[in-house]
Amino acid sequence: MNKIVIFGVGLIGGSFARALKKAGAVRTVVGMGRSQASLERARELGIIDVIGGSGEAGMAEALAGADLVLLAAPVAQTERILAAIAPHLQPGTVVSDAGSTKSDVVESARRALGGKVAQFVPGHPIAGRETNGPDAAIDHLYVGKKTVLTALAENADADIERVAAAWRACGAVIHRLTPQEHDKVFAAVSHLPHLLAFALVDDIANKPHADLLFQYAASGFRDFTRIAGSSPEMWRDISLANQPALLTELDAYLAQLTRMRASLAACDGVAIEGVYSTAQHARQQWIEAIEAAEAPQAQDKAE
Amino acid sequence: MNKIVIFGVGLIGGSFARALKKAGAVRTVVGMGRSQASLERARELGIIDVIGGSGEAGMAEALAGADLVLLAAPVAQTERILAAIAPHLQPGTVVSDAGSTKSDVVESARRALGGKVAQFVPGHPIAGRETNGPDAAIDHLYVGKKTVLTALAENADADIERVAAAWRACGAVIHRLTPQEHDKVFAAVSHLPHLLAFALVDDIANKPHADLLFQYAASGFRDFTRIAGSSPEMWRDISLANQPALLTELDAYLAQLTRMRASLAACDGVAIEGVYSTAQHARQQWIEAIEAAEAPQAQDKAE
Repeated sequence: MNKIVIFGVGLIGGSFARALKKAGAVRTVVGMGRSQASLERARELGIIDVIGGSGEAGMAEALAGADLVLLAAPVAQTERILAAIAPHLQPGTVVSDAGSTKSDVVESARRALGGKVAQFVPGHPIAGRETNGPDAAIDHLYVGKKTVLTALAENADADIERVAAAWRACGAVIHRLTPQEHDKVFAAVSHLPHLLAFALVDDIANKPHADLLFQYAASGFRDFTRIAGSSPEMWRDISLANQPALLTELDAYLAQLTRMRASLAACDGVAIEGVYSTAQHARQQWIEAIEAAEAPQAQDKAE
Repeated sequence: MNKIVIFGVGLIGGSFARALKKAGAVRTVVGMGRSQASLERARELGIIDVIGGSGEAGMAEALAGADLVLLAAPVAQTERILAAIAPHLQPGTVVSDAGSTKSDVVESARRALGGKVAQFVPGHPIAGRETNGPDAAIDHLYVGKKTVLTALAENADADIERVAAAWRACGAVIHRLTPQEHDKVFAAVSHLPHLLAFALVDDIANKPHADLLFQYAASGFRDFTRIAGSSPEMWRDISLANQPALLTELDAYLAQLTRMRASLAACDGVAIEGVYSTAQHARQQWIEAIEAAEAPQAQDKAE
C-alpha cells in the first residue's frame, strides 16, 4: 500500500503500523488523533510518518489517496470519526476498525457513512497487552493472533481482501464471522469474564476488612483478576455496546451460580465435583489445542 | 531438627523437605503416603531419605523421635492420618499441616488427637504451582511466600515456634490468624475465585457452540480461568470443608452481580464504570503493594 491513515496511534493502531512497516507493506503512515502529544511521540518512535492536520482541510489532505484507513481509537468515538471521514472518503479507500464489538460499529457505520458504507469492512484483532499508548506498540503484537473480519453484504470482495491482506502482513490469521456471531462469542469469552473480574475486585474492595483480604490474595487471585486491571472507561463502553449479548451471558452465568449455590448449601459433593471436573477437562483440552496450534509459531520465533 | 516425617511427598510436602534440606535445617526426612510409586520417586529425587513402613509398626517406627510431622496429603485424608498417628505420637513431636482450610482441620484434629491436640499447630503455606507430584517439588517454592499459622489455645509457644522456624527456614514469612479468620479470608480471595472460574468454564463447555467459543478465547480468558485447571477433587474438598464461609462470599458476589445486571439492563454507564473503576484502582494499589514487598526478594534472587 502507498498510504494508510490510522486514527489512534496507541497499542493497537501503533502495532498495526509498526508491523506493516516491518513487512514492507506500506510506504506512508498518517497518524490522526485527539492527543497531539501521542501523535508526536508516535512520529518520534517512527510509528507514523506524518501527523494529519485538523479541521476539514486536514482531514481531506490525510485521506487523499489513502489505500486503507484503520480506526483504532476508543469504540465510543467510532461514529464521530466515521462521520468526519465520510465527506472526504474517496472511492479507492477502504476503511476498517479494530473495535471489540461489531454490531454497534456496523450500525454506527451505516449512520455515519450512508451510501459509502460498502467501503467499510469491520474488523477485530484478538490481541492486546496490559500497557497502552504509542510506547506500548510493538511490531509482533499480531503474529499468530486471530483477526476477525465481520464483512457487510455490501463489501466488495477486493476491499475485504485488502483489509485481510494488511492483517496477514502483520502476521495475523484471518477469521470471518457475522457481526452478531462475533458479539455473541466475545460476550461469552471476553466481555463476561471482564465483568466478573471487575465485580469480584470491587466486591472485595468494598468490604470493611478489604486490606486484610488483599494481604492474603496470591497468584491465583492475581491471574483471575488480571483483566480487572483493564481500562474502566473502555470496558464500560464495550459492556454497553454489547449489552444484549452480555446480558444473555450474564443471565446464564447467574443461573449456573445459583445452581452451584444450591449444591454447596446441600453439601452435594458429586454435583460440585461434576462442575469442577467438566471445567478442568474442557480447559485442559482447550489449552492442549492452543499449544498444538502455537507450536509452529514458537519455532518461527526461535529461528 | 534431627528428623521430620512428611505425609504426602508431592508439590507441597516435597518442596518443604527440599527447602529444609537446602537450609541444612533437618537431618532425616521420612516420607509416608498411600502411593508407593510416589514415595520411591521422592527417595530417588533425594526429597526423602527413608520410606516409612506400613501398619502400626511402620507408623510407630516412623514417628519415633520425630521433631516435626507435616501433613501434606489431600485435606480429606487429614482426620484419618491424624487418627493413625495419635497412638504413636510422642510428647516431643509437633504435628502441623498444610491444608487450605483450617476450621475443619482443627475439628478433625480435636476428634482424632483428643488429649494430644496441643501438639498440633495448624498451618497453611500460601504457595503453589500448576504441577503436582514429587517431580514438581522445588526448594524455593516458599521463598518470600506467606505461611499462615492458626495456632490453638492449647499450643505451647515453643511448639508454635518450632513450626514457624521450619517454615522460616524454607524462606516463608509467618502470619498468624485464627482458624475462623483464615477461612473467611481464603473463602474470599481463593475459594470463591476458584468456584467462579470452574463455573464459567463449565458454563461455556456445556453450550452447544462451545467449540466456536473456545476457538476465540484469548489470553485474558486463559488467565481468568487458570485456577479452573486445578484438581476438581481437591477443590470439591476445599469447597465443602469451608462451606459456611464460601456460601457467605458466594451470596455477597451473587448480590453484586444482580446489582450489576440491573445497571447493565438500564444502560447505566455511570454505575458500571463505578464498579470497574473501583476494581481497577484497588487492584492497581494491590499490585503496587505486592511489587514493593517483593522487590527486595527479587534482588536476593539476582545476587
